[in-house]
Amino acid sequence: MTSRRSFLGAAGGLFAAAGTSIGAHAASKQAVAGTEAFFGPHQAGIVTPQQSHCYLAAFDLTTEKRDDVINLLVAWTDAANRLSEGRTALPLGTDLQVPAPDAADVMGLPPARLTVTFGFGPGLFIKDGKDRYGLATARPPELADLPRFNGDQLIAAKTGGDLCIQACADDPQVAFHAVRELARLSYDSAELRWAQTGFTSNPPDGSTPRNLMGFKDGTQRPADIEKSVWVGADGPAWMRGGSYMVVRRIRMALEHWDRTKVSFQEETMGRHKYSGAPLGLKGEFEPLGLDRTDKDENPVIAENAHVRLGNAAENGSADMLRRGYSYNDGANFVAERWPPWRQGMEYDAGLLFICFQADPRTAFVKLFGKMAKFDMLNQFTTHTGSGLFACPCGIQSGEYIGQRLFEKT
Amino acid sequence: MTSRRSFLGAAGGLFAAAGTSIGAHAASKQAVAGTEAFFGPHQAGIVTPQQSHCYLAAFDLTTEKRDDVINLLVAWTDAANRLSEGRTALPLGTDLQVPAPDAADVMGLPPARLTVTFGFGPGLFIKDGKDRYGLATARPPELADLPRFNGDQLIAAKTGGDLCIQACADDPQVAFHAVRELARLSYDSAELRWAQTGFTSNPPDGSTPRNLMGFKDGTQRPADIEKSVWVGADGPAWMRGGSYMVVRRIRMALEHWDRTKVSFQEETMGRHKYSGAPLGLKGEFEPLGLDRTDKDENPVIAENAHVRLGNAAENGSADMLRRGYSYNDGANFVAERWPPWRQGMEYDAGLLFICFQADPRTAFVKLFGKMAKFDMLNQFTTHTGSGLFACPCGIQSGEYIGQRLFEKT
Repeated sequence: MTSRRSFLGAAGGLFAAAGTSIGAHAASKQAVAGTEAFFGPHQAGIVTPQQSHCYLAAFDLTTEKRDDVINLLVAWTDAANRLSEGRTALPLGTDLQVPAPDAADVMGLPPARLTVTFGFGPGLFIKDGKDRYGLATARPPELADLPRFNGDQLIAAKTGGDLCIQACADDPQVAFHAVRELARLSYDSAELRWAQTGFTSNPPDGSTPRNLMGFKDGTQRPADIEKSVWVGADGPAWMRGGSYMVVRRIRMALEHWDRTKVSFQEETMGRHKYSGAPLGLKGEFEPLGLDRTDKDENPVIAENAHVRLGNAAENGSADMLRRGYSYNDGANFVAERWPPWRQGMEYDAGLLFICFQADPRTAFVKLFGKMAKFDMLNQFTTHTGSGLFACPCGIQSGEYIGQRLFEKT
Repeated sequence: MTSRRSFLGAAGGLFAAAGTSIGAHAASKQAVAGTEAFFGPHQAGIVTPQQSHCYLAAFDLTTEKRDDVINLLVAWTDAANRLSEGRTALPLGTDLQVPAPDAADVMGLPPARLTVTFGFGPGLFIKDGKDRYGLATARPPELADLPRFNGDQLIAAKTGGDLCIQACADDPQVAFHAVRELARLSYDSAELRWAQTGFTSNPPDGSTPRNLMGFKDGTQRPADIEKSVWVGADGPAWMRGGSYMVVRRIRMALEHWDRTKVSFQEETMGRHKYSGAPLGLKGEFEPLGLDRTDKDENPVIAENAHVRLGNAAENGSADMLRRGYSYNDGANFVAERWPPWRQGMEYDAGLLFICFQADPRTAFVKLFGKMAKFDMLNQFTTHTGSGLFACPCGIQSGEYIGQRLFEKT
């Protein structure tokens, strides 16, 4: 992998600073090992093979001016492309008497397959009834506010946002650095609303990773990515080849989960814990066989089992691409909302659920609307944060992210 | 690296579960690639080459019985050794009608050089004036309560603890899993008080990692590890070969830092940002040269520069081994305590400072007592959490951690 260090020349020297070699590197356009291209027909970070770390941040726009938003997106586009290539967000320059335009905390680290994915929340189009940027009529019907779901305990400070940045990389510092540098470019027009780190630990043998509950869950991919994930010709031009992202911060009651019988965990999930096979079967990748019954003619996989309710075909829902991360924010005081109604210090850990789909109304909203009511797993999960964002189509060099929205509206 | 998956045999099968092959593996005592030995003259996780991730947890003892504490330490010792070898905390067994004794969320992941380091806080010896376990007279003078330092803004829920577990691994899920499994063994005798994740991103070329401020700081090692880190013959038997750990959760005002001139950042640190060299010098590893003056006879490295105040020899302090991690807990609302007194959403990110020393009174407490008053860097840092723990000497198989404390007292 190419190291950022090389962009700055050899270390040392009183004014070694200053990235004099950055210009030369910038001229080179060929792909660098360990990088993911920022430009392309789709935004990176959606069907990109999942990186090990994520830093997701939502912003509120504070400016009233449409041009400020455009200027921010122009600046974000350029910086995101540079960062994806393993460069600093802006050229460092040689003047030490000004703040550096890049914190340089990832100097020496590889690009780590960084992807930066931008999303537009409902508040970009209309907020508190106000059409701040003349975009209200362009709000896609797919970007309908999420309903309140059964059991939601959303924390305002971890929910919503006018804009969203999902930074994913195979290094936690590289992912955070990207958001930090982009946030700096927004100081005059937006402010950070919430942020969340995530990670996933992939077994070296390529087998399915396990979530913090110890199960292989939510890693199946839609059969038809093209149809399930990407907005097609019926969408507005700026969203064709884009996707809608739903984010849910889902706390898991791990202490409670760990005290339940394995057999009950398996009934709840509808899968065997260790093999990952559908209940009663042997192989992880066997079809769920949801119509199988036992000798008493009860379904082998219960009506309210997680895998049954999460199965799109079974529930007349459109499919979606799950791309979630585990999160781990230490511990805090919690009163559980299910028996045994334990109160005390518990892990603030669980799932940073992220999914992409062509239409959330017929995918996540439909699927989770039913799960929120019936899923046995709800005894162990609480949704504490939420976001819905329209991720515009990918762009080519010279364009800025969302350009077609602003040009046509 | 050996995968945990192999301990469970091939995946699949209704009762594939159950780790029937664990016994065989347990019999093998040779070192496994990617593992760090739990047993030895010193506890692991102190001079062990630093892993990329950390999960640090502090516990309050809830039991009044000395035997409960001993039983907990016996159980922790056995489980920590198993986990360090890449095994489950306890044998999984084959009974699915009981809770599994291991969450199995790291099944398939390598041991990832897991180390588990145990520490005893002041509350083990005496708490609220009460000698719960007959250990009050055994409290070492080195384990004196930390004083209140200038600028401390400690959050009770991130401070203190009767017992501490530092789990470090090259995988965040493996580190968390270790604490989670050990915590389960404590349900009847202790409860989680606080927990904190940490990470460090090491450049692949082996160069010094940078902290979130973009500087190479705090990674120098003491000249004499033996003398600086380990308790010697003058300490109590259970601490000979052990060390005292100080933990500080230090929030960095990164938004503020990012807006300051590079030259000011360099004056504050006493080092050049990009090269890492002491101010005015060229090489990262050149001696600080603290007596150098400029043409006006002012010190090149200011009296209140971070590196000068952090230098043990310069301050008549004993040296210590720093083994800190960056932390990143998203963002929350903060009122900064220095100009420009900004209020708003800011990153809750910074340094999970961890250091080990033979005597905190003459090392961390002495050094930081002065830094807390004078260090220019204080404008950008706030200590929000704190802990002090006696980490007993290492043990051999058949002993339990801290055994010599309980046997002699």
